[in-house]
Amino acid sequence: MPDITYRPIGTIHSPFKEAEGTPIQSSASQVQGTIEVFPEFVGGLKDLGGFSHIILLYHFHRSRKPEMVARPFMDVESRGIFSIRAPSRPNSIGFSIVRLLKIEENILYVEGLDILDGTPLLDIKPYVPKFDSVKAERIGWLEDNVSKLDAARDDGRFG
Amino acid sequence: MPDITYRPIGTIHSPFKEAEGTPIQSSASQVQGTIEVFPEFVGGLKDLGGFSHIILLYHFHRSRKPEMVARPFMDVESRGIFSIRAPSRPNSIGFSIVRLLKIEENILYVEGLDILDGTPLLDIKPYVPKFDSVKAERIGWLEDNVSKLDAARDDGRFG
Repeated sequence: MPDITYRPIGTIHSPFKEAEGTPIQSSASQVQGTIEVFPEFVGGLKDLGGFSHIILLYHFHRSRKPEMVARPFMDVESRGIFSIRAPSRPNSIGFSIVRLLKIEENILYVEGLDILDGTPLLDIKPYVPKFDSVKAERIGWLEDNVSKLDAARDDGRFG
Repeated sequence: MPDITYRPIGTIHSPFKEAEGTPIQSSASQVQGTIEVFPEFVGGLKDLGGFSHIILLYHFHRSRKPEMVARPFMDVESRGIFSIRAPSRPNSIGFSIVRLLKIEENILYVEGLDILDGTPLLDIKPYVPKFDSVKAERIGWLEDNVSKLDAARDDGRFG
């Protein structure tokens, strides 16, 4: 199966210059920042301003080489890489849902950042509860650990 | 900013051989299929079986060249590509939340497929409502159209 190559459509600007201390999920962050969309893609922002929340897909550009198991921030045991949300993954694609505050030309003002400054942006999608909000009955190893979310911060272990 | 290259970690097997007739969102599908994870990544599946739902990130391998505006399946007007979920995007990354039925070695049995057979898989993440379920107040052009979801099917317009 051939490799797949993507070209960034923009850059995420945030107050987080280093992994250490960064919130580990957007749902645990009220931090604001901006998303710069490169000029050739600005036409694609039409109609996006009507959505209160957007999905960002981006490349974890600072993450280390992945291992198949790793210790997540909210547990003391190592877990399979596909059962955790760590940035060091076989394909280091990040996924965050952020509040869209406003759009001015090619700049999106957003709230809820858990993303490092300078991160390359790959895609923007509108967040739609009917598509994206699921009542999951089981959350595996997180059942006993998800309560740690608000206090958890990146400690730099993944680069 | 440099291009980013990813190597597929698996293949999605579904009953949908052509785009036409495929459900347009996983939340409108009860269709079952399997995900084949390539052997070198099987170690990463540890602990995933505890989650009822998983996020799949994949490459829309059959999508046509993107335009900055396109007419979504659920509207009669053209919309900015980042305000719709069409597969023909600047970076054609797909995002689906599916129910995980069981895992047998490197095969995941899932329900809720809206994905074409043979699609290259890029990443698997656990779905966690506390991270991923958001009460979005505004859904833009979809406010008047989201009720069409269950009846909507792909008509092949994006390849």
